[in-house]
Amino acid sequence: MKHIATYFGLIILLWTTEASNVQKKTRVIFFGDSITQMGVNRGGYIMLLQDSLDKRGLSPQYELMGSGVGYNKVYDLYLRMDSDVMVKNPDMVFIWIGVNDVGHKRSTGTGTDADKFERFYEAIIKKMKIKSIQLTLCTPATIGERTDYTNSDDGELNYYSNIIRNLSKKYNCGLVDFRNDFHEYDVRHNPDNKDRGILTIDGIHLNDAGNRLVASKFFEFLTTKK
Amino acid sequence: MKHIATYFGLIILLWTTEASNVQKKTRVIFFGDSITQMGVNRGGYIMLLQDSLDKRGLSPQYELMGSGVGYNKVYDLYLRMDSDVMVKNPDMVFIWIGVNDVGHKRSTGTGTDADKFERFYEAIIKKMKIKSIQLTLCTPATIGERTDYTNSDDGELNYYSNIIRNLSKKYNCGLVDFRNDFHEYDVRHNPDNKDRGILTIDGIHLNDAGNRLVASKFFEFLTTKK
Amino acid sequence: MKHIATYFGLIILLWTTEASNVQKKTRVIFFGDSITQMGVNRGGYIMLLQDSLDKRGLSPQYELMGSGVGYNKVYDLYLRMDSDVMVKNPDMVFIWIGVNDVGHKRSTGTGTDADKFERFYEAIIKKMKIKSIQLTLCTPATIGERTDYTNSDDGELNYYSNIIRNLSKKYNCGLVDFRNDFHEYDVRHNPDNKDRGILTIDGIHLNDAGNRLVASKFFEFLTTKK
Amino acid sequence: MKHIATYFGLIILLWTTEASNVQKKTRVIFFGDSITQMGVNRGGYIMLLQDSLDKRGLSPQYELMGSGVGYNKVYDLYLRMDSDVMVKNPDMVFIWIGVNDVGHKRSTGTGTDADKFERFYEAIIKKMKIKSIQLTLCTPATIGERTDYTNSDDGELNYYSNIIRNLSKKYNCGLVDFRNDFHEYDVRHNPDNKDRGILTIDGIHLNDAGNRLVASKFFEFLTTKK
Repeated sequence: MKHIATYFGLIILLWTTEASNVQKKTRVIFFGDSITQMGVNRGGYIMLLQDSLDKRGLSPQYELMGSGVGYNKVYDLYLRMDSDVMVKNPDMVFIWIGVNDVGHKRSTGTGTDADKFERFYEAIIKKMKIKSIQLTLCTPATIGERTDYTNSDDGELNYYSNIIRNLSKKYNCGLVDFRNDFHEYDVRHNPDNKDRGILTIDGIHLNDAGNRLVASKFFEFLTTKK
Repeated sequence: MKHIATYFGLIILLWTTEASNVQKKTRVIFFGDSITQMGVNRGGYIMLLQDSLDKRGLSPQYELMGSGVGYNKVYDLYLRMDSDVMVKNPDMVFIWIGVNDVGHKRSTGTGTDADKFERFYEAIIKKMKIKSIQLTLCTPATIGERTDYTNSDDGELNYYSNIIRNLSKKYNCGLVDFRNDFHEYDVRHNPDNKDRGILTIDGIHLNDAGNRLVASKFFEFLTTKK
Repeated sequence: MKHIATYFGLIILLWTTEASNVQKKTRVIFFGDSITQMGVNRGGYIMLLQDSLDKRGLSPQYELMGSGVGYNKVYDLYLRMDSDVMVKNPDMVFIWIGVNDVGHKRSTGTGTDADKFERFYEAIIKKMKIKSIQLTLCTPATIGERTDYTNSDDGELNYYSNIIRNLSKKYNCGLVDFRNDFHEYDVRHNPDNKDRGILTIDGIHLNDAGNRLVASKFFEFLTTKK
Repeated sequence: MKHIATYFGLIILLWTTEASNVQKKTRVIFFGDSITQMGVNRGGYIMLLQDSLDKRGLSPQYELMGSGVGYNKVYDLYLRMDSDVMVKNPDMVFIWIGVNDVGHKRSTGTGTDADKFERFYEAIIKKMKIKSIQLTLCTPATIGERTDYTNSDDGELNYYSNIIRNLSKKYNCGLVDFRNDFHEYDVRHNPDNKDRGILTIDGIHLNDAGNRLVASKFFEFLTTKK
């Protein structure tokens, strides 16, 4: 009988360990627009982040999922957050939105008013906080890479980035400040003041260097900020 | 004893009648933008509708409430529907929205995409249907009163009106088709093809004739469609 | 001497024939935007018009030239009329402009105010009239082929078409009313109210049927209106 | 004889003085939009500049004329330069244009493409240079006075200001760089990062301090740069 008890104890122990391992695997969802949609492609930032985690032996700790949809604005995230994010019970969510809320003002006349941007963003944060999701907000990076603030939407991107920074403080969320990161990188690597081609292919969507920069910032955040 | 019984019977009868009167008073909320906001002003369409109900002795049946906010688009209604409408437990709601969803594309670059207009409108309908609110949708009237479809936003207003007409069918809601009503009125009363001054002061907001037309359409709807 | 006289006579005869041929060949320039730029491609409307002239043996009478540049608005025509049109001393010019003056309001925020559209159009007409160029104005055809006036820019296209029709009367120019022609064709051939695919590939640029319609209207104009 | 000589000498002296006075009075036209239109009002920058010239006894040297029209963009200046400026044979012209070329992209969808802005600006410069007008270009000041480049149109204003600076070099024109001047002033006097109220009443049009700053910059330019 003692043997049997030991045997069952072992099974329980193993099962518990297994279970706790499963529990430890942090489910991370990247929630955003076309930039994130492309992040799961070969060479995309989510793929590169996965590589980095693999190399450091951190893969068992994280399960990365991309949830990016082209043309999405903040209220698109709001409309699809239940079906696309909440049902997957993520532990962490990175929200990266804003270039379309700003850029669509010019291109289609359907950008998002600054105050509504804040309202919907806030609504997303509150719903996720209720579920105790660890939430990190990302500022929009660029629409045009010129470094002297002569890109058409620089003023708006700076303004909306401030909204996001304030929301991050107000709701005690993490912050990955791509607006700053990209500007600093471009100041160093864009001496000819080109509007694309340094971190992006078109001023918005990431090229290889852009994907590497973004992946490294997320990696840094995951491995040091916790 | 018989007298007393009769007496009590009378009281109960009176009380029941009183109660049933209270129950019959239908609470009606007009939910919309600046056009509705102005509707509660002196001479506004809600005031005129109240007058018409008074004259016909129908005032005891209806309680009219305005809930219009300037610059509102469909997602503003969505964001404030709980605090501004649902808490008041209305029996009927008239939703009249759309000129800003269309017009803000041009003026501020923050209009509403057609598919998002439908999504948010649908979300409002569903939430109200759950509460068994009797719901009536209104098409946006005009941005410019020229009758030969040369007003800048005619194409868009026609398109968004179709969305509303389809939603009305799909969800079995009432429909007050101001887009049609105004066009028909203008065809008869705007021989010089002016862009304002017939039913509106500025192409959008109602003048006296406009308020009378709108009030009469709502009156007609309330007194015949039920 | 006789020989010499004959010789000179022959020269004069040849020269006269040459000269009369040269005089008779009417130089026609199509002056417009990307729609006209594509008109000189294989299957384009200018090529089809050339074919029709060939078949009727009218080729010796006309020399067709395309001068279309993508994204052009009326003031682009104004800026390049000297270098692209006047230097070629055309006998006839067809001006076909407007979709970008209207459409760029939405897409890039750089459309043309209606009054400035008229001002620059008028300036072009006046400069060409001084050179006694036979001038024909064309209304913009479509931005979207739906026939119930639910295309976003229908109101504006109708309005700007009216400006062109009035200029045509005021300055006694010819008129090819593509706005009407396309609408009539679509009413007959677009029963499903599709926004493209009947006469255009994308709502704006001509497909095969569109090129055929345009070529036939110009052919009709050249062969009957003179 | 002596008398006669004296008499003639006097005549010559008088005539010379008269003539030199006429020659010395430099006709200066301020050519621009609503900001310049308001410049001739009481307290406007042209009135203040006149006051400064009066105080320094420089009035006999300058004749100041305002030619500002509300809503003007660069091509409006082009269209009215002959009738409003050239016919007055000015010696100096200050061109101050750009806020509407940029701002109307958002408000009415009829801003000016950057390359067309340059083309029309260049056309104005060339026409004025032919008449040997001493030409000075001014950069657009502000649309919003926040100093951290979060005003919606900061990117565009910076970009269009660069175009103007380059044109000034290319055509050897004077430059009054209000974009820089206003930014520097706001950095010092707008610690709360307000979007209006420091130099403007609405982010664009000058308040008293704005008129004083502009007048002082023009005064400085007139009295030192020549």
